[in-house]
Amino acid sequence: MSVPSVAGHRASFHAIEWHHHSLHLLDQRLLPHQQQMLHYRSAAEVADAIRDMVVRGAPAIGIAAAYGYALDALAGRDLHQAFRVLAESRPTAVNLFWALERMAALSHAGTEALVAEARRIHEEDIIANLAMGQFGASVLGEKAVIYTHCNTGALATGGHGTALGIIRSGYADGKVQEVFAGETRPWLQGARLTAWELLQDKIPVSLVCDGAAAQLFRTGKVDWVIVGADRITANGDVANKIGTYSLAVLAKHHGVKVMVAAPTSTFDPTLDSGAAIPIEQRPAEEVTSLFGQPIAPAGCPAINPSFDVTPAELIDVIATEKGLIMNPDHDSVALLLAR
Amino acid sequence: MSVPSVAGHRASFHAIEWHHHSLHLLDQRLLPHQQQMLHYRSAAEVADAIRDMVVRGAPAIGIAAAYGYALDALAGRDLHQAFRVLAESRPTAVNLFWALERMAALSHAGTEALVAEARRIHEEDIIANLAMGQFGASVLGEKAVIYTHCNTGALATGGHGTALGIIRSGYADGKVQEVFAGETRPWLQGARLTAWELLQDKIPVSLVCDGAAAQLFRTGKVDWVIVGADRITANGDVANKIGTYSLAVLAKHHGVKVMVAAPTSTFDPTLDSGAAIPIEQRPAEEVTSLFGQPIAPAGCPAINPSFDVTPAELIDVIATEKGLIMNPDHDSVALLLAR
Repeated sequence: MSVPSVAGHRASFHAIEWHHHSLHLLDQRLLPHQQQMLHYRSAAEVADAIRDMVVRGAPAIGIAAAYGYALDALAGRDLHQAFRVLAESRPTAVNLFWALERMAALSHAGTEALVAEARRIHEEDIIANLAMGQFGASVLGEKAVIYTHCNTGALATGGHGTALGIIRSGYADGKVQEVFAGETRPWLQGARLTAWELLQDKIPVSLVCDGAAAQLFRTGKVDWVIVGADRITANGDVANKIGTYSLAVLAKHHGVKVMVAAPTSTFDPTLDSGAAIPIEQRPAEEVTSLFGQPIAPAGCPAINPSFDVTPAELIDVIATEKGLIMNPDHDSVALLLAR
Repeated sequence: MSVPSVAGHRASFHAIEWHHHSLHLLDQRLLPHQQQMLHYRSAAEVADAIRDMVVRGAPAIGIAAAYGYALDALAGRDLHQAFRVLAESRPTAVNLFWALERMAALSHAGTEALVAEARRIHEEDIIANLAMGQFGASVLGEKAVIYTHCNTGALATGGHGTALGIIRSGYADGKVQEVFAGETRPWLQGARLTAWELLQDKIPVSLVCDGAAAQLFRTGKVDWVIVGADRITANGDVANKIGTYSLAVLAKHHGVKVMVAAPTSTFDPTLDSGAAIPIEQRPAEEVTSLFGQPIAPAGCPAINPSFDVTPAELIDVIATEKGLIMNPDHDSVALLLAR
C-alpha cells in the first residue's frame, strides 16, 4: 500500500500522530482557541481521551483506539483489558469496534505487528479519504462555491476528511473557489472546527448561521452543498447531523446540488430506507446552554434530535472511496457496493 | 377608545409601566435569567435605556420614547432637547420618530395632555395587537401547533405582541395547543425572550435550533409557522429576521401554513417588491462570538445578514389590526390598506 501522489491535498496539521512509541492527539476541546497536543502511553489513557472528547469523529476514534491497543501491547499489559476499556469509551461508535476487532485478530502476532496494524488502519483511512476526495472533486466543475455543515475533516478522520476531504482535494485542484461553513447548532462544530481547519489550510471560508443558508442559496452564489453521513440505507437515504435535511430541501428549492461524502463502511444495506432509522433525541441542556452558560430560561423544554434523515431523491451524488453514486437509489447503491 | 374584553389574552407580565409619574422598564438585557424593573425620570435616561437595549422591538421603543418625552414635560425641561436626545437613541427606528412626532404635535397642550398622549400611544398599540391577535387566531383551526421565530411578543410591543400576540390570543381561545420557538441565531431572541414570555404565560413551549425546524416539520406535528415582519412591500413580500425565508421555504415543502403578523404601519407601498429591499449585513463578530466569548477562530470571516425577504407566494396569510390578507399579492394588499 502506498499513499497516492496528491501533493497539497493533505491537511496542513495533524490531529493524530504516532511517534517514539506514544500517541499524540490534538486536544479538540480547546479548539479553535488553543492548539495543544496531548501524549498518551496506555489504552486506559486513550479511552479517557475518547470519552472526554479530546478526539471525536467516528473514523478518528477508531484510529485512536487502535493505537491505544498497540500502546498496551508495547507495555506488555493485558490486551483483553485494553480491548474492554477502549470498547467502553464510546459504546455507540461502530468504527471503534471495527478497529478493535482488527487489532484483536493480531493479539498474538507481537508488538511490531500490532503497531504496524494500527498505522495501517490510520493510513488506509487517509487513502480512502483521498480517493473519495478525488472522486468527489471530479464532479464539481471549475471554481465551485461550496456550503458545508458540521465537521467532516482531518479532525474527524485519519487526516484528510470526507466532505471536507472533497473540499480540500477540490481546492488543491482549483475546482473549489471558496467555502461557506454552517455553524451547526447546537454544538457549533462548523464554527469551532471546520472554520479552524479551513483557515489552517488557507482555504477561503466564511461562517454562516444555519438559518441564513436559504438566503445565501437564493443569491445564486452557492453551487454545491457537501456533507458527510452517519448512516446510509439501501435506497440511498442519508442520516447525518441535524440540519442536513434542512439544507438538502433548501438546496433543491434553489437549484443548488447536493453531494454526500461517505466511506462504503457507512452504508447499512440491512435497512431498506431512512424510515427505519430512529431519530435519537439528546438532552435539552445541549440547546438551552452553551459552554456551561444558560442561554434560555431555567427548565425550558427543548427538542434536540442529534441527526435527521435526508431522502435519496434530494441527493445528486454520493461520493465513496470506491467511486460515485449518481442519483442514488436501491439499484445504484447496490451496484457501487458490489464493486 | 376602550380595551376590548379579552380576558386572559394579555401577557401576565409588564415590560413597560407608567405610574407615579415615572416610567418603569423591564431590563431585557438580564432576561431570561433575572427579572428587574428599572425606573426612569427623564428623556435622557430613557434615551440611554433605548440605546443600551433595556427596551427593544420597534413598537416598544416608540412607546418608551413617548413616555420619555412626557417625563421631561412633567419636569418642565426643554422639549426640543427631549425630542432630539430621544430621536438620536436609535436613529433607524421608524416607530420612534412616529411616536415623537405625535408627542411634539402636542408640545404646547400641557403636561396632562402629553402624559395622556403617551398612554394613548401605548394603549393603541395593545389594542391593535389584540385585534390582530383575534383576526390571526380565527384562521388557526382547533388546537394548532405553532412554530415561531425571533421575539414578537409583549417584550417587543406595548404588551401583547404581533406573531406572539396571535399565539397568545389563540391559546386563550383554545386554538393553540403548543408552540415551538426557533432559537433565532445569532442573537438567540427565541431562546432568551420568546421562551421566557411563553413560560411566564404558561403556554407550552419547546425550544428548537433553527437547523432542526425542517426535521420537525417533516414529522407532521406543526400546523402553522407564524412570524412578524420588519417591512412588507406592495406585492406582499416580507422582510423579517434572518431565518424567516428559510422557514417559509421549508414550511411550503412540508404543507405547513405560513402566517405573517404585522400592523399596517409595517407596509411600505412605495416599494414594488422585496427585490427593492437591500439586505443589511451586520458585523461578523455577532456570529463568531456569543456574550463576549469567541465561538469561532479569531478573525474568522462570517456573513451576517440581519434579515431576509420572503416572497409573497410562500405566505398564506398576513394578519393586521384591520383584518386578514389571504394569499397576499398587489391587489389583496392594496385592498386591505384602503380599508
